[in-house]
Amino acid sequence: MIIMKTDATQEQIAQVIKEIKRCGLRADVSKGAYRTVIGLVGDERKIPFDHFAALPGVKEARGVEIPYKLISREYTKVYGGESEQVVIKVGNIEIGGDEPVFIAGPCAVESKEQLLKIAEGVKKAGAHILRGGIFKPRSSVHSFQGLGAGGHESAEEALSWLSEAGQKFELPVITEVRGETQVDLVAEYADILQIGTRNMYDQDLLTRVANKGKPILFKRHFGAGIEEFLSFAEYIAAEGNKNIILCERGIIPIGKGKSYTRYTLDLAAVPAIQKETYLPVMVDPSHGTGRRDLIFNMSCAAIAAGASGLMIEMHYNPVEALVDGPQAITPEELKEVIDACRRIHRLVSSRRNEN
Amino acid sequence: MIIMKTDATQEQIAQVIKEIKRCGLRADVSKGAYRTVIGLVGDERKIPFDHFAALPGVKEARGVEIPYKLISREYTKVYGGESEQVVIKVGNIEIGGDEPVFIAGPCAVESKEQLLKIAEGVKKAGAHILRGGIFKPRSSVHSFQGLGAGGHESAEEALSWLSEAGQKFELPVITEVRGETQVDLVAEYADILQIGTRNMYDQDLLTRVANKGKPILFKRHFGAGIEEFLSFAEYIAAEGNKNIILCERGIIPIGKGKSYTRYTLDLAAVPAIQKETYLPVMVDPSHGTGRRDLIFNMSCAAIAAGASGLMIEMHYNPVEALVDGPQAITPEELKEVIDACRRIHRLVSSRRNEN
Amino acid sequence: MIIMKTDATQEQIAQVIKEIKRCGLRADVSKGAYRTVIGLVGDERKIPFDHFAALPGVKEARGVEIPYKLISREYTKVYGGESEQVVIKVGNIEIGGDEPVFIAGPCAVESKEQLLKIAEGVKKAGAHILRGGIFKPRSSVHSFQGLGAGGHESAEEALSWLSEAGQKFELPVITEVRGETQVDLVAEYADILQIGTRNMYDQDLLTRVANKGKPILFKRHFGAGIEEFLSFAEYIAAEGNKNIILCERGIIPIGKGKSYTRYTLDLAAVPAIQKETYLPVMVDPSHGTGRRDLIFNMSCAAIAAGASGLMIEMHYNPVEALVDGPQAITPEELKEVIDACRRIHRLVSSRRNEN
Amino acid sequence: MIIMKTDATQEQIAQVIKEIKRCGLRADVSKGAYRTVIGLVGDERKIPFDHFAALPGVKEARGVEIPYKLISREYTKVYGGESEQVVIKVGNIEIGGDEPVFIAGPCAVESKEQLLKIAEGVKKAGAHILRGGIFKPRSSVHSFQGLGAGGHESAEEALSWLSEAGQKFELPVITEVRGETQVDLVAEYADILQIGTRNMYDQDLLTRVANKGKPILFKRHFGAGIEEFLSFAEYIAAEGNKNIILCERGIIPIGKGKSYTRYTLDLAAVPAIQKETYLPVMVDPSHGTGRRDLIFNMSCAAIAAGASGLMIEMHYNPVEALVDGPQAITPEELKEVIDACRRIHRLVSSRRNEN
Repeated sequence: MIIMKTDATQEQIAQVIKEIKRCGLRADVSKGAYRTVIGLVGDERKIPFDHFAALPGVKEARGVEIPYKLISREYTKVYGGESEQVVIKVGNIEIGGDEPVFIAGPCAVESKEQLLKIAEGVKKAGAHILRGGIFKPRSSVHSFQGLGAGGHESAEEALSWLSEAGQKFELPVITEVRGETQVDLVAEYADILQIGTRNMYDQDLLTRVANKGKPILFKRHFGAGIEEFLSFAEYIAAEGNKNIILCERGIIPIGKGKSYTRYTLDLAAVPAIQKETYLPVMVDPSHGTGRRDLIFNMSCAAIAAGASGLMIEMHYNPVEALVDGPQAITPEELKEVIDACRRIHRLVSSRRNEN
Repeated sequence: MIIMKTDATQEQIAQVIKEIKRCGLRADVSKGAYRTVIGLVGDERKIPFDHFAALPGVKEARGVEIPYKLISREYTKVYGGESEQVVIKVGNIEIGGDEPVFIAGPCAVESKEQLLKIAEGVKKAGAHILRGGIFKPRSSVHSFQGLGAGGHESAEEALSWLSEAGQKFELPVITEVRGETQVDLVAEYADILQIGTRNMYDQDLLTRVANKGKPILFKRHFGAGIEEFLSFAEYIAAEGNKNIILCERGIIPIGKGKSYTRYTLDLAAVPAIQKETYLPVMVDPSHGTGRRDLIFNMSCAAIAAGASGLMIEMHYNPVEALVDGPQAITPEELKEVIDACRRIHRLVSSRRNEN
Repeated sequence: MIIMKTDATQEQIAQVIKEIKRCGLRADVSKGAYRTVIGLVGDERKIPFDHFAALPGVKEARGVEIPYKLISREYTKVYGGESEQVVIKVGNIEIGGDEPVFIAGPCAVESKEQLLKIAEGVKKAGAHILRGGIFKPRSSVHSFQGLGAGGHESAEEALSWLSEAGQKFELPVITEVRGETQVDLVAEYADILQIGTRNMYDQDLLTRVANKGKPILFKRHFGAGIEEFLSFAEYIAAEGNKNIILCERGIIPIGKGKSYTRYTLDLAAVPAIQKETYLPVMVDPSHGTGRRDLIFNMSCAAIAAGASGLMIEMHYNPVEALVDGPQAITPEELKEVIDACRRIHRLVSSRRNEN
Repeated sequence: MIIMKTDATQEQIAQVIKEIKRCGLRADVSKGAYRTVIGLVGDERKIPFDHFAALPGVKEARGVEIPYKLISREYTKVYGGESEQVVIKVGNIEIGGDEPVFIAGPCAVESKEQLLKIAEGVKKAGAHILRGGIFKPRSSVHSFQGLGAGGHESAEEALSWLSEAGQKFELPVITEVRGETQVDLVAEYADILQIGTRNMYDQDLLTRVANKGKPILFKRHFGAGIEEFLSFAEYIAAEGNKNIILCERGIIPIGKGKSYTRYTLDLAAVPAIQKETYLPVMVDPSHGTGRRDLIFNMSCAAIAAGASGLMIEMHYNPVEALVDGPQAITPEELKEVIDACRRIHRLVSSRRNEN
């Protein structure tokens, strides 16, 4: 849609229409009392809005279409594809299916012993997938960067522990890929590849990870709007990989003064995204709040909002954790969270199925 | 706490200490390898931090105390007061008690007939309190400003309808006070006085409303952090009125591109605020999302997060509403919301009581 | 403009068109391959977008017009009014004229002696208007609220000092009105009435202040977008008072971690607003940064960005100031700022006049 | 610094002190009337704050030190290093020296002919360095991604044009590196390597680029606070490369309603960062505003704020540009900008040198 200035001349309007036709589109002109608005009819993806915005007499040029048609619920119907919720299978686990799925584990893998002990707790608590960070994105170069920072051998060793722990307790495993050179290695060991919040905009990484064909847990950047989040998920889908699990993990808190939560968990994004796309949406209340004393409440809230599952940091002894101890919960607490969430999920999903 | 610059001189440090003593406080000096940090011991409310920040050699001066001691859970204990959750009684209704409370009604009161019809629906759906806006804050001077804009007589007539509808269906009533001159009039008719999001910072209005002694529903400004929100609630408490119901209603969305929700509902603020204060916290999912198709999910989520109740816009025919139609739900939908929320509340509160 | 869903039926489209006609507007229908977009032609201010957004089959309903036509540069031309920059006269001072205007003084009036001493400095430094807060908006009820908090008599005394200091040094005076009951009193003494950032949304206060007919310095709320800022200025203009000086004073900083400036001074708002409206725009670098060591740079930057003047906090001894000492500069520093700004203004305005 | 809860027990305090000592640090205990605050003395970078925050009885644990000591002005002095402004030399050009430096060119390189024509304009306008994007980060996978997207050969060809254009007009050249696999190739051709806003957090890319030893233009992420921005610049410095040119390019706009600028240019960040670090700071008004009609004003403002130079998009015919046409200016306009900026720079830098 192109909105002309109130003092745009007939020549300027004519030039815009000519340009529209030159792009192979149709122009629908609507003349109001004060200004003219011109609708563009055709495939919006091919429209150079920047070009139109720079033409003389133009006040504004903008699209009305979504930039993520490949993963869109609306366009899947238009294109005649399936319109049902996509279920992503990882081993026997179904993400986006009838039951909520729980991913749990330590923020960072620290040792084989630590990992095995935690994995046991994860299994006993009733969770389904084991997480553990090996390449840790950190805001300070002087902080512990994960065992992956110790070089290829150290990274591979940590990955093998993760894989072993997963096999021992029959839990698929997930870990984060932070840089392009890590993709091949991580894909050998992990069942799900995670793109962290700080890498959401890293389109080269997305493309490379997508090409592995494995399920991807894709976290929203803490400064990204929903439209941006879905537009970058489209980078993955454009490689032919639609095994995308979207994950809300909190956005930058606004307002003066001390923050009471590390980020603002945007739970309304869960149902809002579900109206837009058929991809499953999970929530990470650990990073979203940064506070273990809020995990129970916000886990229940996330499931009530419609999330397909949760990703939670767990440690048998949070005080001992090298990274993010204040947000980790214990195995006992995790069990309590999972039990409550299952009951809430049943309660809210029964209503939704009726509608 | 005062953090000195690394190159602060002995004289500058001595001057800061002297000033601290002059304020009747104690200075605890901690000399590190690179810089000196000075702790201030005494009543922080009397400390002129601005003054200290302006002294030579000072890098930063900041408090460690909360600016809302009167409503604080921590300081209530320190001062020997009650530490239990405050329950606010309005007629037979208890806000902050064992059951969640539901406030519902039209965004704006439009006519007596409209209001009575809606009030009946509110009652039938199982809600407890009737809302209806008479003085509407609007972002455009050219929009409908509520019947209150028609002058004193028109405002009083609308208020009398509200009162009558409340009595007829045994529902206490709440309406917003937008300006200081409306306080006396509104307080004659309403059981709860509402301070809207745009007036959160209006300390003159807060003081005047507080002095009426009636319960106040106090909405967070959409640009306010939690600390600011509680600091302004302290203006009400400072007048001796602690019948304050805090209400989260969404903050400014961040991120590029189109917003999918009108605001970002900050549900983690609910338990975070509850850790800080004994006042009840409610949530307004209608304004928070601006979308009727998200009300069910976000109502369930708010209750799961620990909210003491909800404020929801309801209309027997949302398409007809002059204001905010897209976010209003029908009486049938409200009933469904209330039923689900009651069950979720029972589920999550039982766990909390055990802890 | 109304965007229909891709699966909207012919009946739904027909109903929307019918409703548009019922509102006395024309419907321009544009059918694309996937969806229909309907343009509304007529006076947008009368269009109930909320109503249209709630109709079945509608994806989105939004306006293309600005909500601040009364102060708009574009619509002034359309309506045949003057299109030149408005110059606001206060005594001999012209705001929005050929020279930049400087408002300076203490954050808070503390005593007659303090004020006279500062006023002398303001005059000597070459500034034009004297500021001094008497009713101080504060984020904590426990902080010093200005002499206005001492009751009517104390407020009137402080106002008389301000007026006297202004007369003695031939400086028009400005002070803030925070609540509705202060309007009459302040208007007796002040030459310009200030609406502070926290009261930008307080439409009852705006209306009342506007009716005094005096020039108003209107500050942007720290959480407000430009469109909102101008929409609320429209509340003043709607009362027939167009003596509005807009003032940018910083918005909420975003991003994790400690803030290096109290707010984010949005200097691009200055030329952006000037393209929209003929009203003069000033900048307050003192509140915008909260740091006296940044005042020189940001004052120069504001004038270079096109501001018509600056509002700066000055104190003969910033360390002594009860409020906001860290952001006040000395009379000598103020002189330096004014001299540099004058030269920059000459440099940039000469170019603009050529264009 | 560790702030204990008001009800922390003696045992809990003792445990915290014990842990502090175990980390090889000293504990300075300050007991107030209500709570105890414990200062940690020692190298804060080694302190596991997360660990302390998770200990029982602890309300808050936070550092007082900056996380970017390697590039810090304060710590350079402490460590006995140079405290003068760093000047980065690229050929004969000095960035951070006595004169402002101007980088200009097209957003995206489109053809050899386009580039040579623009380079000529850049030279004639008096700018110093030629920019041109080959690997373009884009928010939609369906948009033009730059000639780099055409594969290695296409990328190398475009890079060779850039290099050739630079040599022909005696302009050093800069281009963006978006992904790790592009680093070696780009470093062969470019004199300065650019890290774009969306890659600021990509620590693997930063490390790899830093190791090339070439000057790096490092853009602030649009959601990043200043502390984060400098913390990620520290990743580059930690590799031994301090040839870092920091670049402010606008942050996410906040506030409801339509944005009048694409981003919010945070000009106060320029002097604020300059107080923290000796690295030069440049500004990109093209991306910061997204509007060519604001470039003159915001360029002048950036230089007045203290910027060491500007990066500006220029095109001989902005309407023709495939990417970001609405923000590009013409060679004539660029000349006007440079002339005005030079005069402002002289005016403001003379004052600064006196201080």
